Amino acid sequence: MTSSGSLRVGMVGYAFMGAAHSHAWRNAHRFFDLPLTPELTALAGRNPEAVQAAADRMGWASVETDWRRLIERDDIDLIDICTPGDTHAEIAIAALNAGKHVLCEKPLANSVAEAELMTAAADAAAARGALAMCGFTYRRTPALALFKQMVAAGEVGTIRQVRAQYLQDWLSDENSPLTWRMDKEKAGSGALGDIGAHIIDASQFVTGQQITGVSAVMETFVKQRPIGGDLVGLGGRGQTGDDVPKGPVTVDDAAIFTARFDGGPIGVFEATRFALGRRNALRLEVNGSAGSIAFDFEDMNTLWFYDGTDPAGRQGFRRILVTEPEHPYVGAWWPAGHGLGYEHGFTHQVVDLVGAIASGTQPTPSFADALGVQRVLGAVEASAGNNSAWQTVTG
Amino acid sequence: MTSSGSLRVGMVGYAFMGAAHSHAWRNAHRFFDLPLTPELTALAGRNPEAVQAAADRMGWASVETDWRRLIERDDIDLIDICTPGDTHAEIAIAALNAGKHVLCEKPLANSVAEAELMTAAADAAAARGALAMCGFTYRRTPALALFKQMVAAGEVGTIRQVRAQYLQDWLSDENSPLTWRMDKEKAGSGALGDIGAHIIDASQFVTGQQITGVSAVMETFVKQRPIGGDLVGLGGRGQTGDDVPKGPVTVDDAAIFTARFDGGPIGVFEATRFALGRRNALRLEVNGSAGSIAFDFEDMNTLWFYDGTDPAGRQGFRRILVTEPEHPYVGAWWPAGHGLGYEHGFTHQVVDLVGAIASGTQPTPSFADALGVQRVLGAVEASAGNNSAWQTVTG
Amino acid sequence: MTSSGSLRVGMVGYAFMGAAHSHAWRNAHRFFDLPLTPELTALAGRNPEAVQAAADRMGWASVETDWRRLIERDDIDLIDICTPGDTHAEIAIAALNAGKHVLCEKPLANSVAEAELMTAAADAAAARGALAMCGFTYRRTPALALFKQMVAAGEVGTIRQVRAQYLQDWLSDENSPLTWRMDKEKAGSGALGDIGAHIIDASQFVTGQQITGVSAVMETFVKQRPIGGDLVGLGGRGQTGDDVPKGPVTVDDAAIFTARFDGGPIGVFEATRFALGRRNALRLEVNGSAGSIAFDFEDMNTLWFYDGTDPAGRQGFRRILVTEPEHPYVGAWWPAGHGLGYEHGFTHQVVDLVGAIASGTQPTPSFADALGVQRVLGAVEASAGNNSAWQTVTG
Amino acid sequence: MTSSGSLRVGMVGYAFMGAAHSHAWRNAHRFFDLPLTPELTALAGRNPEAVQAAADRMGWASVETDWRRLIERDDIDLIDICTPGDTHAEIAIAALNAGKHVLCEKPLANSVAEAELMTAAADAAAARGALAMCGFTYRRTPALALFKQMVAAGEVGTIRQVRAQYLQDWLSDENSPLTWRMDKEKAGSGALGDIGAHIIDASQFVTGQQITGVSAVMETFVKQRPIGGDLVGLGGRGQTGDDVPKGPVTVDDAAIFTARFDGGPIGVFEATRFALGRRNALRLEVNGSAGSIAFDFEDMNTLWFYDGTDPAGRQGFRRILVTEPEHPYVGAWWPAGHGLGYEHGFTHQVVDLVGAIASGTQPTPSFADALGVQRVLGAVEASAGNNSAWQTVTG
Repeated sequence: MTSSGSLRVGMVGYAFMGAAHSHAWRNAHRFFDLPLTPELTALAGRNPEAVQAAADRMGWASVETDWRRLIERDDIDLIDICTPGDTHAEIAIAALNAGKHVLCEKPLANSVAEAELMTAAADAAAARGALAMCGFTYRRTPALALFKQMVAAGEVGTIRQVRAQYLQDWLSDENSPLTWRMDKEKAGSGALGDIGAHIIDASQFVTGQQITGVSAVMETFVKQRPIGGDLVGLGGRGQTGDDVPKGPVTVDDAAIFTARFDGGPIGVFEATRFALGRRNALRLEVNGSAGSIAFDFEDMNTLWFYDGTDPAGRQGFRRILVTEPEHPYVGAWWPAGHGLGYEHGFTHQVVDLVGAIASGTQPTPSFADALGVQRVLGAVEASAGNNSAWQTVTG
Repeated sequence: MTSSGSLRVGMVGYAFMGAAHSHAWRNAHRFFDLPLTPELTALAGRNPEAVQAAADRMGWASVETDWRRLIERDDIDLIDICTPGDTHAEIAIAALNAGKHVLCEKPLANSVAEAELMTAAADAAAARGALAMCGFTYRRTPALALFKQMVAAGEVGTIRQVRAQYLQDWLSDENSPLTWRMDKEKAGSGALGDIGAHIIDASQFVTGQQITGVSAVMETFVKQRPIGGDLVGLGGRGQTGDDVPKGPVTVDDAAIFTARFDGGPIGVFEATRFALGRRNALRLEVNGSAGSIAFDFEDMNTLWFYDGTDPAGRQGFRRILVTEPEHPYVGAWWPAGHGLGYEHGFTHQVVDLVGAIASGTQPTPSFADALGVQRVLGAVEASAGNNSAWQTVTG
Repeated sequence: MTSSGSLRVGMVGYAFMGAAHSHAWRNAHRFFDLPLTPELTALAGRNPEAVQAAADRMGWASVETDWRRLIERDDIDLIDICTPGDTHAEIAIAALNAGKHVLCEKPLANSVAEAELMTAAADAAAARGALAMCGFTYRRTPALALFKQMVAAGEVGTIRQVRAQYLQDWLSDENSPLTWRMDKEKAGSGALGDIGAHIIDASQFVTGQQITGVSAVMETFVKQRPIGGDLVGLGGRGQTGDDVPKGPVTVDDAAIFTARFDGGPIGVFEATRFALGRRNALRLEVNGSAGSIAFDFEDMNTLWFYDGTDPAGRQGFRRILVTEPEHPYVGAWWPAGHGLGYEHGFTHQVVDLVGAIASGTQPTPSFADALGVQRVLGAVEASAGNNSAWQTVTG
Repeated sequence: MTSSGSLRVGMVGYAFMGAAHSHAWRNAHRFFDLPLTPELTALAGRNPEAVQAAADRMGWASVETDWRRLIERDDIDLIDICTPGDTHAEIAIAALNAGKHVLCEKPLANSVAEAELMTAAADAAAARGALAMCGFTYRRTPALALFKQMVAAGEVGTIRQVRAQYLQDWLSDENSPLTWRMDKEKAGSGALGDIGAHIIDASQFVTGQQITGVSAVMETFVKQRPIGGDLVGLGGRGQTGDDVPKGPVTVDDAAIFTARFDGGPIGVFEATRFALGRRNALRLEVNGSAGSIAFDFEDMNTLWFYDGTDPAGRQGFRRILVTEPEHPYVGAWWPAGHGLGYEHGFTHQVVDLVGAIASGTQPTPSFADALGVQRVLGAVEASAGNNSAWQTVTG
């Protein structure tokens, strides 16, 4: 399906995620030995001038103003979907049905129903050699990848507890304007789907276990916001003042829930955009019978490891700088102690995806994995809507 | 009721809490100007030799082998109750009815019903001039006292979120033996009442708000433990091996719950004795509309403050070493930067209690405050026993 | 020399150090098994009313207005010297010659010559059974005591580098008034002798090595300060304004120096009262061939340990909460994770001193050890006065 | 000199620094608006196969096996020198004389004499429109750039003290083999020139002051190392064992020195490759009369700021995540809290260099700035060779 030695990519959307993906497509083969060399073949967006400007800046060879045209092109092997969640299902299914590989940003969809359709399409496509992957990129942060390796190697023993937080604060200002991310139609949910999805995926990823049930509370602290923000993009400051027109926030500002995993642990989860002072604190801690591991994305090159087998009097959480050649992905970069940044996760995603495509194996997280996350999101919403009563996650 | 210038104390129990209380009674007037000087008049315990040895060590002038005798003595003004929770109600009510002031360790009781009886007794006694206080000592850690002052002064604005954890790990080893703390009859509950009570109280204290409802999960990870531990004291290691007799753990190892406060915030709570590597991490964070504050008892002299009014580009959590003369209680101690320890909270408790008694004002936390905590504990257990359904805290 | 089972103490001086020492004498036997029970027999000070008030507050049974009278008393076994450095030699030598044990605050003296006389007196007294010790109390902070144990046990291998800082900031405000601590006659030196002495002692203590030479720079940033501060006590704020009379600061505000130790390591030292924001950062780090250890008194219950024998990819500085029963001194106190404070070092000093006296063994640090520190202080001043040229520490 | 709208680059050397520079040349215009677009025109190296492979991987359009040929080419505007220090002078002078712009890795040269020749060449070339810059890249780490801005804006007041450390540990293992970096002929010096140069430059950069004198100690802990390492590249593990041939280490393993700056502050510096556990701890702290700022590259997205004007009781070091749009360079990247990595400094270097070339202004650090660093390096060596006597830095 790929041209000899290359993987020709068509990308839809070119905002925040588009910039991060483009960087990864451009640079992965400069640091890693890839079996196929990515080519930035075409970029799709509705506004002709804007998409051309983005393509020039980000290094795409051509543009399309309709994503459908991207799928029709023979010179494209993979469709990379970087649009808001309400468009994922249509694009992904069309691409898979057309025999394209697909990389789809998270959350996979805005509903379990959509995610199920996408997963079915992915399963069918896989039988024909077209592979699909969902972009839970944090999995490829070296510290989180190491986290998973250590748990899988038994370094924490039997897991008993999980605590996960994704704390942001960019909506804490009540005069921050409405954008598409506060619109249930576009975004599906608020903090829950946007960032809660990440900690659900990350917790299932590092533990190797599935969440089986939840009890949840969701809250919208600021119920009306000034209109005037960018309702499709990331948006800037809106107008303020008494006479500024306001519109309703139709999503959650924060979602908190307790959970159980299929291997026994209990978990506490919190996703919020109102934790003033916490800019991007994706935090995950696992306590096991033999050790504990903790991570915070605000200090993304560090992993804290408590080894319960250390001798008494010498025990303590160890600050591992995940910048050593022994650590996942790191050997391709700089000497020890020279930190990586946010975008490296996207580069590593390209590395793994290209490797999977070249070898014809299923990349992870698959659409089925992402559907699993979606089902937890659905259960959280169901519990929150039902007096916090326990909600089983049904598969 | 007090002898001229002194406050004569009789204490029941002399284990961990007894040592901490004795230290406070002995030393508070050495650093603080107290209106009444505490006298360590008598110590009560059932074993004559043991109680005499403890009295000698801790500085008590006499002993009794029955706490009832302590209450009968005319030369005692205050009864300090440092026994397990199942005895609190009987001792406290008897003491109050006898016109003694009472300081009772937390949790106030092992059930809401007992706590209600105690609170009624305290209310009746207060009318007669005998005052009662519950020992949620962490309130007197300078950093937590400052936390409350700052919230009360509006330095975080409107509170939106609370996250509270009390993480310990001393039961993580499944061969750690049974003690009275794992026996529901003696202890009432496990992690919930022992340490969960502290974060419930601390969160209500610093926010000045009450928890109105909860949704909870409780879990016992290790359901059988070796018999052979000290079933009444703090205990050492039990025997291990296949043929060691085991007994059932009848309390929770961990309790996690979501909550709502009467002023609007939502909260996440976690109390556990299985967070391997976390020795005594009583953590509390509040996020408001104007600022955030965070605390961790493992670094007890530090308070982290995010001031949302700092200029853009200069914002960040500020590490306040709570060792300055401006900080609560600290002026009586050492120069800035010279940290205080765990037992100072008990000394500050004595300072505040003696001051309240001398002035005839109600000390805090009152039994009514502690009953409020007990009701939250009861709601947590009720929700956990009812499929995590939302449980209103009724007053 | 001691009365049966007790050690009768007479203390000179009752400011900051006097309060800390009194607390230790009062409480050590409440937590530790001591072979002799300290008695707070008499307190000496020049002002009759002030010394009586201090004695009442701190728990001393009697007072004297002349320290010589203290030495004459038969009912006193040990003289505890808590006065400024210019009086140490006279008092200590007189006490030792009179057959009293002596505990002398640091620095031992204001000059090498005085320290030599004191050491000679101590050596002579030791032959007669009177023991002398210098109060480098930080040695008894559990984390620093553990530091030494670990180095001695070979856990860092061969030491190569030492970095030591004692950073304070209480003179950073140029309007802070003159006190005796800025007067060379009273204090001997400034930051160097006051806090530099601590890191010299601590570095020699934990490494078990002696400093053999130094190259130094000393600086006085604020050369004139308002008169009006308390010239004998700790002092408060002076007057400010253009017409406020000022006096000269005759000591160093900061002293920085490089050093070599007799076992091979090189070291970097810095003592300052002008590190704005650093309240009491006594920091010490040792790098060896097999591991590293780091400490900061602002986080006094923590020791950071890097174990070079940890497997590749799992290495990192380990945060040891020095609050476990396995750690030095800690078993007598609270459960793991319940931190100790500044004054505990003084209590541990009493424990060790009483033990040494009871067993007739030399307590450490001896006056000879303290003389060694004094010689380094002298070498630092000599180098700073000689264009930073290398100055050998002569013994 | 540049082709219309582009800046054609020829680079010499393609090891660690070459990879970092290539990444920057490829990507700077993808995130920043540049007045000239860099073109990766040619890469030079002696080994034809190796340089071609590197060019393919790093994205260079052509190769040369002699750097002189690079300078002769008309289609190259700028020579980027990424070779060991012993070759800098010859290449840079030839390039400047040929009218090329030059970017030269640090340290500028292996001696003051060479650096003076290079600076003279740069001055002469500047008159003809060819500009030269030295690659002290850490200046472009956003946190260090913010550090400088804050000092320049007076946010710390009058600077009194500087403490700078560059702690690495990659030579701590005595069996780590000889490489060119331990050979005085190739490298000029050891830790001093390699990493000490960085903290000298960084300290002069953030303070805006020059070091006027130093007193130094230098040490080589491991004097013989196994031969067998890569004597020209970064090298791997050598052989070990008794019979492994060894060669002499002719450079310093660690350099420590005290310093004075022309604006008044004193400073303490330490550069070492033996601080076991410290992978890449470039640390810099400045204490002023109004505030303090501290940085550690191991946590490179964070700046600690103590604002002395904060109210009493609310003071403390503030953890600024330097990931906000208000911070230098950051606006071009990701949302707040999404950290940058080591290589971003190189990208920012390209941004600033291209901007300076396009506008015909002198980029910084100039060769004269780098000569200033070289003179401090020379003074350190002179002092260390002269019994640590004070050595004035002469300009």
